[in-house]
Amino acid sequence: MSKKITPLSEIGLFGLIEHIEKTFPKRNENSLTGIENDAAVVSCSGSKLITAQNLLLEGIHFDLTYYPLRHLGFKAVVSGISDIIATGTKPSQISISLGLSGKMSLEAVELLMEGVATACEKYDLDLVNFRPSSSLTGLSIAVSAIGFASESSPSTRIGARENDLICVTGDLGSAFMGLQLLEREKQVLKETGQKNPDFGGYDYLLERQLKPEARLDLLDQIKNAHLKPTSMALVREGLAAALIRMCKASGTGCNIYENKLPIDHSTNTLGEEMEINPVVAALNGGEDYELLFTISLEDYQRIEKEGKSLKDIFVIGHITPESKGYTLETNAGEEIALKARGWGNEDAESKN
Amino acid sequence: MSKKITPLSEIGLFGLIEHIEKTFPKRNENSLTGIENDAAVVSCSGSKLITAQNLLLEGIHFDLTYYPLRHLGFKAVVSGISDIIATGTKPSQISISLGLSGKMSLEAVELLMEGVATACEKYDLDLVNFRPSSSLTGLSIAVSAIGFASESSPSTRIGARENDLICVTGDLGSAFMGLQLLEREKQVLKETGQKNPDFGGYDYLLERQLKPEARLDLLDQIKNAHLKPTSMALVREGLAAALIRMCKASGTGCNIYENKLPIDHSTNTLGEEMEINPVVAALNGGEDYELLFTISLEDYQRIEKEGKSLKDIFVIGHITPESKGYTLETNAGEEIALKARGWGNEDAESKN
Repeated sequence: MSKKITPLSEIGLFGLIEHIEKTFPKRNENSLTGIENDAAVVSCSGSKLITAQNLLLEGIHFDLTYYPLRHLGFKAVVSGISDIIATGTKPSQISISLGLSGKMSLEAVELLMEGVATACEKYDLDLVNFRPSSSLTGLSIAVSAIGFASESSPSTRIGARENDLICVTGDLGSAFMGLQLLEREKQVLKETGQKNPDFGGYDYLLERQLKPEARLDLLDQIKNAHLKPTSMALVREGLAAALIRMCKASGTGCNIYENKLPIDHSTNTLGEEMEINPVVAALNGGEDYELLFTISLEDYQRIEKEGKSLKDIFVIGHITPESKGYTLETNAGEEIALKARGWGNEDAESKN
Repeated sequence: MSKKITPLSEIGLFGLIEHIEKTFPKRNENSLTGIENDAAVVSCSGSKLITAQNLLLEGIHFDLTYYPLRHLGFKAVVSGISDIIATGTKPSQISISLGLSGKMSLEAVELLMEGVATACEKYDLDLVNFRPSSSLTGLSIAVSAIGFASESSPSTRIGARENDLICVTGDLGSAFMGLQLLEREKQVLKETGQKNPDFGGYDYLLERQLKPEARLDLLDQIKNAHLKPTSMALVREGLAAALIRMCKASGTGCNIYENKLPIDHSTNTLGEEMEINPVVAALNGGEDYELLFTISLEDYQRIEKEGKSLKDIFVIGHITPESKGYTLETNAGEEIALKARGWGNEDAESKN
């Protein structure tokens, strides 16, 4: 047994996944993917099952001082099913395990599960497993989800090819800005003893943080436009992390453009007010739950020719050879290295 | 919104599951079971997928002061796959999410995942999802598992019929006694400053607590003997809880015999030493990870006639009409009501 002690911050979140991967050889024929993807693909009598799991912990993923329990239940489902959606698959079943601290009453659990029920209704899901347990510390929520791939080849983050166009959905950084706003108001209320926070017209940012939507709607749009994503992933820990992991898995580089990043005007406004760079929020903010995918140039040209408009889908750059690294071209024409948001060691994921 | 505050201890663990169940109507045709079972059944192109999820939390499910991380990793897998096994199905894939506190180093995660890898090797499992995250408090481990039913009708806790025989596997209460021993030695070391605990020949009990086995071997035996369990469930929170939930789900009562309970001699010996009733350990101890199932009288008589011996399977009583309640016949011939281990309100699950 090695006596060496390596802080996890040194290897990073994604480094840890890669590190662990080697020790798990494949044993069952029907395991079609390993742990390199956020959602796993398992074959089942000819069709393909997609499964993914997520853990939300109090103090890390949510702060109960400003997080309404009903919203939290909804968001836990969105967080749990979004990895399935990012394979191009509609999720159909979810399982929930709760670690409940002493301060949670029945009514509190009811509120939380009301949010879960609302999400189940909205996204047409069945809760097939519910396992409450006690917790000595905070509230823990584990959500696993399954879905059955409608396509013979569900999308994964592996498959991006040189010259493919990089697309993202929705807008980026707004959930992160919503979190900054909530944190600021929490601080203000604490210092001034006021009772009502002042969110000054930033409702959209709050909603993106407190009640994010799963982008099931985008799947229909991609399908209807006959787009065939060559790779797809969820933007959960910021665009940079999602894009770098996709490129690493696909063995490619990438180049994206600052002026193409979809950023909501309220993200810009609050960014100015709070002195937070909206581009940094978009690249490294997290909790966007938007889709990142690549399409071939031919696919894009066909769409253009057909005159189809793709609502809420934005081309932000293209895939390059691996040797080019992961770069962002700024508005000033400068090329800078993309850095992924990680666990302390921010440089670990960057190649440049 | 109701202002009423009901402590969870009032409704109990199983009460909470029943309470939540009503708010989740079924939406997808392929969801074959609801949350009434610990493992869910989902149909998938004609075959049946079984899925279950579990959450292990530091301080509640394990104490890192005496729990070796490698054993913990192994046990987390056993805990995660045992609900699948209790449907008569071999699990094939697992997903793991970790909440890692600041005190966890890379080497600590490696040890934990070594235990997971050992279990994957032993039980022929693929890890298809691995999601580390940080945690403000203790270590959290969420494990979800899937398997594909070999039988057209996987067993659930619903299906026990009057006069069916009640069977359990292995022995009961030993994992609980192992825990008592570990707690006692932790206390002794703390008080005396000694360095080495004295487990005085109770290796078996420690093993049952620290390195429990998943009873995959029993599935083969049940299959080879052509036994057709009418219902099956996992003994996780003690025999009484598993049996009462099975009877409630099946709409029956039960009667079991104290002198038929499989209790290891070391459970009896340590029970005497520590003044813990071994029968209480067997009924309400928990963490046995053994199987509880019912078979028809005909099935049993056929086995007897064939002269087949069922290793590690014990008949402990029989299913009665619902109106008879859930009873234990003591060695003194007394009939007492079974009580399930719950969340404080011990009487909540008892009918008598």
